[in-house]
Amino acid sequence: MKSIIEIKIRGYHIDHFNHVNNARYLEFLEDGRWEYSEKNDLIKNFHKKGISHVAVNININYRKSSFQGQVLKIETSVIKKGRSSVTMLQKVFLNSTDTLIADAEVTNVFIDAKTGNLISIDEELMSVWPDLAEIKN
Amino acid sequence: MKSIIEIKIRGYHIDHFNHVNNARYLEFLEDGRWEYSEKNDLIKNFHKKGISHVAVNININYRKSSFQGQVLKIETSVIKKGRSSVTMLQKVFLNSTDTLIADAEVTNVFIDAKTGNLISIDEELMSVWPDLAEIKN
Amino acid sequence: MKSIIEIKIRGYHIDHFNHVNNARYLEFLEDGRWEYSEKNDLIKNFHKKGISHVAVNININYRKSSFQGQVLKIETSVIKKGRSSVTMLQKVFLNSTDTLIADAEVTNVFIDAKTGNLISIDEELMSVWPDLAEIKN
Amino acid sequence: MKSIIEIKIRGYHIDHFNHVNNARYLEFLEDGRWEYSEKNDLIKNFHKKGISHVAVNININYRKSSFQGQVLKIETSVIKKGRSSVTMLQKVFLNSTDTLIADAEVTNVFIDAKTGNLISIDEELMSVWPDLAEIKN
Repeated sequence: MKSIIEIKIRGYHIDHFNHVNNARYLEFLEDGRWEYSEKNDLIKNFHKKGISHVAVNININYRKSSFQGQVLKIETSVIKKGRSSVTMLQKVFLNSTDTLIADAEVTNVFIDAKTGNLISIDEELMSVWPDLAEIKN
Repeated sequence: MKSIIEIKIRGYHIDHFNHVNNARYLEFLEDGRWEYSEKNDLIKNFHKKGISHVAVNININYRKSSFQGQVLKIETSVIKKGRSSVTMLQKVFLNSTDTLIADAEVTNVFIDAKTGNLISIDEELMSVWPDLAEIKN
Repeated sequence: MKSIIEIKIRGYHIDHFNHVNNARYLEFLEDGRWEYSEKNDLIKNFHKKGISHVAVNININYRKSSFQGQVLKIETSVIKKGRSSVTMLQKVFLNSTDTLIADAEVTNVFIDAKTGNLISIDEELMSVWPDLAEIKN
Repeated sequence: MKSIIEIKIRGYHIDHFNHVNNARYLEFLEDGRWEYSEKNDLIKNFHKKGISHVAVNININYRKSSFQGQVLKIETSVIKKGRSSVTMLQKVFLNSTDTLIADAEVTNVFIDAKTGNLISIDEELMSVWPDLAEIKN
């Protein structure tokens, strides 16, 4: 289930170029992924199964600048699964206009918290993550 | 001319997963690009010509975790030029071992600071940026 | 008029000691002061009068740790006025319990945006800032 | 033994007001205290004795703005000891001029990492921290 959060841009998000700094968008995206995980009950389920995860790639396009006082809307969904990786798509819109400010693909792998071994994207993982089951490869 | 900086990892760089946070690497990379710009006299020359620049894409691979107390080495060089874009390669090594922690391609476009129009990667731009002139397309 | 905001603690707010980092609380407080300014129409009124402001002192007590997943509530009010300074009190509570996590006094001075000179806390300033008028010296 | 570090101000340290953001100074100060701890062998000694520490108060004066491209020098020393607290003085200078940009007193308490109980500032603690022994009460 896609998740949506809103973030209001404050003075400390802004940098020398007078717009939101590149690195701050990655914090906004992290906020979006935590929200997605909570909304889809992933944290509880992963914890129960001893699954940890880690981002291995973030590919972000900066399309427009955003500024102090504006509100951003961050949409997070799952778009791809590999043998042992899942890619999330995150879109950052300017709230009042639906102008696309940035979009990113974030690829995660899943790890057995005890052994550190990669976990395959299998039926068991999909059973606690319906969005994943719906993706065709 | 390739630039190199070192950054010591401190407690505030670390996140909930006990390693350096994804967004912090983008700050480290920004540090690296400022150093590259200073070492290659780009800031002064761009300012003189009324050129501004903006990152349009960052594609970063997170390969290994890094931890409080470690020293990272960030190498920055130019690897690609397009009609109106330049891509920099940035590699983050664990200083003491040359283990690759992360690597990123950062694509910038250049803008006429007055008109906001894109600037082509032409002879004039290359004349103040020898690394750029050396790249074969 | 006192303002209140809520902030959900995410993984990137956490540091090496596994709690919210000291510096992050100052970002939360800044969020709280922007909200106060908006709620009390200060930004618009200050801009109209050519008034800028700057924090000259922050005195923060860290009373309890806070952790990933918790929600913080930040209350902001005005408590003191000097000849040319205003002190705001900001309290950070753990939302679900009203446990005090941190509290801070933030002292600002006001500046004529053109001349850079200090502005006295006079009738004119108080006319656009009722909370200030109510404080007894 | 007083410690000194230098930090170069980059674009991401700057905020909406075009100077280094208030919260960023607290990161710079944390950098300074880690350096002090390393220089005075505190980390190793505290770890050996099972001592943890936590900041309970930071009182910072912002005296001048600092800007992108400048180099700051942060000096850290110990100035006060209480029954179970130690206060460090940190001064932030503009490197090239010795202009004072900010100064802060940071008060820490020390904790038994196992029991969570406060540790008194006693002979044993002072034996591994000569600066502390030299402070008269």
